Amino acid sequence: MKHTLIAAALALGLQPPADAGEGTAYPDGYRLWTHVKSMTIHPGHPLENPFLGIHHIYANPQALEGYKSGRFADGSVIVFDQLQSLTADHASSEGERVLVGVMVKDGTRYAATGGWGFQGWAGSSRDQTLVSDGGAGCYDCHTAQAERDYVFSTWRE
Amino acid sequence: MKHTLIAAALALGLQPPADAGEGTAYPDGYRLWTHVKSMTIHPGHPLENPFLGIHHIYANPQALEGYKSGRFADGSVIVFDQLQSLTADHASSEGERVLVGVMVKDGTRYAATGGWGFQGWAGSSRDQTLVSDGGAGCYDCHTAQAERDYVFSTWRE
Repeated sequence: MKHTLIAAALALGLQPPADAGEGTAYPDGYRLWTHVKSMTIHPGHPLENPFLGIHHIYANPQALEGYKSGRFADGSVIVFDQLQSLTADHASSEGERVLVGVMVKDGTRYAATGGWGFQGWAGSSRDQTLVSDGGAGCYDCHTAQAERDYVFSTWRE
Repeated sequence: MKHTLIAAALALGLQPPADAGEGTAYPDGYRLWTHVKSMTIHPGHPLENPFLGIHHIYANPQALEGYKSGRFADGSVIVFDQLQSLTADHASSEGERVLVGVMVKDGTRYAATGGWGFQGWAGSSRDQTLVSDGGAGCYDCHTAQAERDYVFSTWRE
């Protein structure tokens, strides 16, 4: 796990985990939010570092509305909950948590990054933050989705 | 898809999809329930027919309580939402829905099957039911979990 977390931190272009300071809060209670979709990143994928494994996407009520309307209101929070994918005996199961990532919408505060604040926490910690560049690295990739308000995932019924 | 669904019906020991009659209702709104966990069944797994692909487990509020206490009260509903797992370019994504399965707790009504009623619906349909043996086939497998009130999945924070 330790190597994974260090790799994750380095890949995000960041210093080792440190206190928040970026101001984006841990998404308390997200496990009870709406599950949007899941995906598994395998070795060899361009995003394997740091996103190797299974990830589940969760939306708070404002974000759920955004998935449906195409525009996310301030207060929308999307969580990227990444777990190890453990494959054995012809099945892949969830392992330890690798990181928790969030996108928090605040058009004013985060105007420089599409209106979204980005943060991540190593493993299941609530204090070992992973993003210390103001979200610029995350935003670089998310700009590909500018027409969808910078969000990659889509809602399915 | 058609072959998958027919295979699913046959593997469940059942006749082709027919009108419900088993009395277990479709779990309206389950996509907004709590996501418990996910797993992917690969070819070669003993349950690949009919459970090949990714499945997400959802719990209604009563069932969520049951996961935490170990005993599921009447009214608990657990959903098994099975989608194709599509692997390409070193990633596995969700494809079409294969089936929706439910366990509904009613200790009196379903006393013969551990207090749980079992039903499934082909694809995203709400009328093509898959279980017509009163849940006996499902229960046969779930008895392995009798000490956990016949539930395989467990809650993780």
